[in-house]
Amino acid sequence: MLSISKRGEQMPPSPIRKLVPYAEAAKKRGTKVYHLNIGQPDIETPPAIMDAVRHADIKVLEYSHSAGNESYRRKLVQYYKSVGIEVNYDQIIITTGGSEAIMFGFFTCLNPGDEVIIPEPFYANYNGFACAAGVNVAPITSHIENGFALPPIDDFEKVITSKTKAVIICSPNNPTGYLYSKEEMLALKEICLKHNLYLFSDEAYREFCYDGEYVSAMHMEGLEQHVVLMDTISKRYSACGARLGAFVTKNKTVYDAAMKFAQARLSPPGLAQIMGEAAVDLPASYFDAPKAEYLSRRNLLVSRLNKMKGVFCPNPGGAFYAMAQLPIDDSDQFCQWLLESFSHNGQTVMLAPATGFYGTAGLGKNEVRLAYVLNLDALNKAMDCLEQALKIYPGRIN
Amino acid sequence: MLSISKRGEQMPPSPIRKLVPYAEAAKKRGTKVYHLNIGQPDIETPPAIMDAVRHADIKVLEYSHSAGNESYRRKLVQYYKSVGIEVNYDQIIITTGGSEAIMFGFFTCLNPGDEVIIPEPFYANYNGFACAAGVNVAPITSHIENGFALPPIDDFEKVITSKTKAVIICSPNNPTGYLYSKEEMLALKEICLKHNLYLFSDEAYREFCYDGEYVSAMHMEGLEQHVVLMDTISKRYSACGARLGAFVTKNKTVYDAAMKFAQARLSPPGLAQIMGEAAVDLPASYFDAPKAEYLSRRNLLVSRLNKMKGVFCPNPGGAFYAMAQLPIDDSDQFCQWLLESFSHNGQTVMLAPATGFYGTAGLGKNEVRLAYVLNLDALNKAMDCLEQALKIYPGRIN
Repeated sequence: MLSISKRGEQMPPSPIRKLVPYAEAAKKRGTKVYHLNIGQPDIETPPAIMDAVRHADIKVLEYSHSAGNESYRRKLVQYYKSVGIEVNYDQIIITTGGSEAIMFGFFTCLNPGDEVIIPEPFYANYNGFACAAGVNVAPITSHIENGFALPPIDDFEKVITSKTKAVIICSPNNPTGYLYSKEEMLALKEICLKHNLYLFSDEAYREFCYDGEYVSAMHMEGLEQHVVLMDTISKRYSACGARLGAFVTKNKTVYDAAMKFAQARLSPPGLAQIMGEAAVDLPASYFDAPKAEYLSRRNLLVSRLNKMKGVFCPNPGGAFYAMAQLPIDDSDQFCQWLLESFSHNGQTVMLAPATGFYGTAGLGKNEVRLAYVLNLDALNKAMDCLEQALKIYPGRIN
Repeated sequence: MLSISKRGEQMPPSPIRKLVPYAEAAKKRGTKVYHLNIGQPDIETPPAIMDAVRHADIKVLEYSHSAGNESYRRKLVQYYKSVGIEVNYDQIIITTGGSEAIMFGFFTCLNPGDEVIIPEPFYANYNGFACAAGVNVAPITSHIENGFALPPIDDFEKVITSKTKAVIICSPNNPTGYLYSKEEMLALKEICLKHNLYLFSDEAYREFCYDGEYVSAMHMEGLEQHVVLMDTISKRYSACGARLGAFVTKNKTVYDAAMKFAQARLSPPGLAQIMGEAAVDLPASYFDAPKAEYLSRRNLLVSRLNKMKGVFCPNPGGAFYAMAQLPIDDSDQFCQWLLESFSHNGQTVMLAPATGFYGTAGLGKNEVRLAYVLNLDALNKAMDCLEQALKIYPGRIN
């Protein structure tokens, strides 16, 4: 018998996409489904960056440099400068989405059997890349009561072993929306310096901070050799399908090793690089409208949720996600029930069960993640659905 | 001290790209460099597929399905049917270039410590993906004397161990241009069935067969569960920079596991999928012109090479590569010398030393790979350079 690999068996399926068949069935029955389950914004991709592709004069769509077009990397240097990050173009590798930047980080810095600390709940696909790389995830739990603030340093110390090589953070956070404060970032710096850990910083949502100051891992002096920035244009310019990201580090040994992984896959997508380069020329005011839109949505969503009986939703400082505690027995069952057995005026809402974002089994059973990627009207209707659903859900617990 | 991973250290740098600094220096000195070192064709990307992107009506460039747009996968079913391959759309995962298809194959089917057999010389990046996956490459040597035909089955039997899980073939071949015959494919089938091995079939150059019949691994009855087809549009439509490929298998267990890796990276490039879909609608006659062009180039190149004293170049049946045996001491030194110390009428030629394509140390020292990706006039001038160079190269050995 042919057998597949152990990592192929152990690789976690997407916890977000597993409910898709139920959503499809609901739609077939004629039920309108509001998708708050996935971070696919409805914000228009800036026409100027789509036009850059339309007007590009390309005779032969050639491989680019394995690190990405030098012209694009030089443009990104300008962009990073505008957010207070000083890097050179030869400290940037253009990647196929933020996903590939995460993968390069795991493969370049960690051996099979090594451990990476991640505050949970966390972006579920970190599990997938860890599994592919043979790396073990050591979760430390953040809590909804304080809005998912960074867990105390003691909690880090407790899980650190000789195998621990890195910490992954995402700020503003997916799935919690939490924005780490300067003090929290400094605490992370101390722990990375003290225990000689890499700090992988996923900053996909940098542009969307509503309360408090954005602090990049790259802002912290003295931590330069430890930081790998994992970036993407997916959310910044609502261009998820472009698959364009960046792996940025001032650690030359890490950079040179990551470049070998980049060379093996030849080059990042060519047309997307044209979009990325044009995006740097968008006026700084470009972000005003999407940011204001997300802020209104956040305010509506959080307000509606906290008015529902038994629901608690801390106010997220950034990104476009919120985590809510619901009076339910099991978030997986509840989210499936919403699609399978519930409708309100012919409508229902699709949410992401929080269980998929925790590394510790059993956590997240009464929490869901909501992505506020729909307009205010749709969000209001989705909240009407949720409000009604919670009144009649058979597994309601208080 | 922070340290990188063992695989980051062991990852092989690109053997093709290591000479790039010497080429850049030559150009700075004003020397014209003919690039026969890399498989980047000069053939125009079909304007119709570029136009499909230009005219696409995209408001939000969204994530596609992790397996790629269903519309594109259904189109590809038609394309595969046209080359005698019967597959369903749900047996196809659209990938980021052929590279990602190769990676999915390694990660899905092989454990760290497992072995993959590859007839050498072989596409150098297989080494990179094997290293990333912790898989060991067991090369078996094919020989220039018989044009790099499939080595005898005995040679396979000799290297098979309990750790051997797969064979990788590439036909028509990069770097040799060799096209496996039906008999050779049947021999591979027998060995895979007998020893329960996967057959990874890299068919990037399917369209470019000049002598003999193209046989796909997917044409072989009884081997369906063993075959993983690794495909790409890079060479087919001269669209290397699009980064669009496909992972195709009828083995549902393998497909389902590979889908989990696909989900972790979310989706393949969106704009490239529009190109790929439009490409299936190109008339069948589209391939006539590039194929005729490559055939003329092959004939010129092989004829010129074999007229040079001490040079032997077997006639490759497909792809756009030829391997030549030269009267030199060391192909790495020779290729570097061509760029560093030689010019002929202000021109030189860049070749790929064959050493990078062999897994067995010491092989390929008197061989180079030539990619005939330039027009006839440029090829002739490049051959003039090589002919002159061989007359005066200090390391000439006969």
